[in-house]
Amino acid sequence: METVRVFAPATVANVACGFDIFGFAVDQPGDEVVLTRRDEPGVTIVAILGDEGRLPREAARNTAGIAIQKYLEHIGRTDVGVDVILHKQMPLGSGLGSSAASAVAGVYAINELLGRPLSTIDLLPFAMEGERVACGSAHADNVGPSLLGGFVVVRSYNPLDVIRIDTPTGMHATLVHPDIEVNTKDARFILRNEVSLKNTIIQMGNVAGLIAGLMKPDYSLISRSLVDVIIEPVRAILIPQFDEVKQAALDNGALGCSISGSGPSMFALSANAEIAQQVGKAMQEAFLSVDITSELYVSEINSQGPKVLEPVSNLTV
Amino acid sequence: METVRVFAPATVANVACGFDIFGFAVDQPGDEVVLTRRDEPGVTIVAILGDEGRLPREAARNTAGIAIQKYLEHIGRTDVGVDVILHKQMPLGSGLGSSAASAVAGVYAINELLGRPLSTIDLLPFAMEGERVACGSAHADNVGPSLLGGFVVVRSYNPLDVIRIDTPTGMHATLVHPDIEVNTKDARFILRNEVSLKNTIIQMGNVAGLIAGLMKPDYSLISRSLVDVIIEPVRAILIPQFDEVKQAALDNGALGCSISGSGPSMFALSANAEIAQQVGKAMQEAFLSVDITSELYVSEINSQGPKVLEPVSNLTV
Repeated sequence: METVRVFAPATVANVACGFDIFGFAVDQPGDEVVLTRRDEPGVTIVAILGDEGRLPREAARNTAGIAIQKYLEHIGRTDVGVDVILHKQMPLGSGLGSSAASAVAGVYAINELLGRPLSTIDLLPFAMEGERVACGSAHADNVGPSLLGGFVVVRSYNPLDVIRIDTPTGMHATLVHPDIEVNTKDARFILRNEVSLKNTIIQMGNVAGLIAGLMKPDYSLISRSLVDVIIEPVRAILIPQFDEVKQAALDNGALGCSISGSGPSMFALSANAEIAQQVGKAMQEAFLSVDITSELYVSEINSQGPKVLEPVSNLTV
Repeated sequence: METVRVFAPATVANVACGFDIFGFAVDQPGDEVVLTRRDEPGVTIVAILGDEGRLPREAARNTAGIAIQKYLEHIGRTDVGVDVILHKQMPLGSGLGSSAASAVAGVYAINELLGRPLSTIDLLPFAMEGERVACGSAHADNVGPSLLGGFVVVRSYNPLDVIRIDTPTGMHATLVHPDIEVNTKDARFILRNEVSLKNTIIQMGNVAGLIAGLMKPDYSLISRSLVDVIIEPVRAILIPQFDEVKQAALDNGALGCSISGSGPSMFALSANAEIAQQVGKAMQEAFLSVDITSELYVSEINSQGPKVLEPVSNLTV
C-alpha cells in the first residue's frame, strides 16, 4: 500500500499593494495531506484533523478533494483510488491561505503518488479548482506561492501567467492571526467596483516599486512600496484595532504591515528574524489591549513550496 | 565668457501599462541647449532653433527658461545671468518628451556652468517645473528618464520618489512620429476619472510583469506585459491607423507597441537593432497606407541621460 505525506505552506496574498496579483509563502504554518492508494477508484476524505468538524468531508466539496479529482480527470486516471487524510495546522478563514494550502498539498501528493506525470507548475489549475470550491472564484494568489514557493506575481488570469520573484535573503514575515473571523466572500463584497484613476496610478507605482525593491534588493524601497490605497482602507474596518496593530509593527521596525489576504490575519515584513519577532510581539500586544488573543508565526519567505514528509503513524486513523 | 552646450534625450512615457509612472530615454532624438554666462542677472532666451517660431521666447513661459530660473532661485544665485539658445531637434507636441528634454538640458547646463552645486537627481524638481509650464502639471515620467537615463519608475509624486530600473542589453526602441498633432491637454482630458477594479488588477499585473521582465531579464515576459487596458483603448482613437500600425510592429517581431506618452508618436520595443529597424519600416508603411508621412528613430535605451557636448560655432546666433 502506497502512502505519500505532503506539507504545503500558508501564504500571504495581496501583500499590501498587489490585490489579487501578489502572494508569498511562509515556512509555517501550513497544512498536511496524507494520501493512501487503494484498489477501488474514487477520492475519499477519510479524516480531517484540526478543523473542529467544520470542513466538508465530501470530496467534491473539499478543496483538497476536488483538486485531486480534477487532476485525476485531467490525466485520464479516474481508475485510481485514494484515501485522503487532511491535517489542518492553521486556523480556518484566517486569511493565511488555508484552503489553498490544503488544495496544493493534495494535488502535489497525488502527483507524487503517481510518479510525477506533471511538472509542479502544471499542477496550478487543479489547486485553483480547490480555491473555486472554497472561495467562489479560482484565485491564484494563494495557490501560486503555496505551490511554487517564494514571492509570486499572478500577471494574468486569462491566460494564466504566474511569475516567481526573488526575495532578499534574511527577510522575514510576521503573521498574526487574531481570534476573530472574517468571511472571505464578505471581505470581497464590500469592495467598490470602481477605483479612481488617481489611486490606480498610486497603486501601480507601489506595485512597480515593490517588485523592483524585492529584486534589487532595496529594503527602503520595499518599505516605501508596501502601501495599499485601494483595498486596505476598505477592509481595515473589518479588523478591530487595525490601525494600532499596524502602527505597532511599524514602530518596532517592520518594513511594512497590512492585511493578509482578506484578513483578519495581518502580516508584516522585516529585514531580519529578530525584528520580525519583536514586531510580532508588539502586534499581539496591540490586539491584546482590546482583549483579542492571537496566534503568532514568524518565518522566512518559504522558497520551496510543498515538500514530501516521512509518513508518521499518528496521522493514520 | 563661459559657454556650456548640453544634449538631453527624448523619452517615451507610460510605456504601455505604466500611465504616469513609467518612462525611458532614447539615444535620439533629443534637444540641445547652449548657455552662455553674461554679466547682468536674469535668464534670456536669445534664440530657439527648429521650432518654426512656435515656442514662447519669454523665459518664464519657456520650459528650459523656467527650469533654469527655478534652479537659480533655489540655490540663491539670482545674481547669475545667462543667455539661452535652445536647439529643438525633434517635433513639438509629438509625445516624445520634447518639452522635458529642453527643460532637462537647460537645468543640467546651468548646474554644469556653476560647477555642479547640485547632484543630478536633485535637478529633477526644476525640470518638472518646466513640464508644469508646458503641460499644465509637473509630471516626472518624461523628465525623470531624460535626466537620469534608462528606464525610470515614478513610484510616488508626494513625496517624489523616482527609481531607475536596469534594462536588457541590446533591447532597442523604435519611435515613429506621424505628421499629425495631438494636444497633450486634450489627450489627458478624454480619459475617464474612474477605472474598473478588474482593469486595475489587470494593469497592476502587467506593471509588475514588465518590471520583473526588464530586471530578470526575460523578453517573453516583457512582451506579455506590454499591454495597456486603461489608457490605450481611449487614446488610440486620436491616432489614425493605430491598430494597423501596432499590428505591423507585432507582426514584424516587436516585443510590444503602444502610444508614446500622450501621442501621436508610437513606440515599439524589440530584442535587437535589426528587428527594431524592420519594425520601424513596417510601422511607417502602415501610416503611409493612409497617406500619413512620419519620422523614424531607432536606438538603444539611453543609459546616460544628458551629456555635455563641445560648443560649436554654428549654434551661436
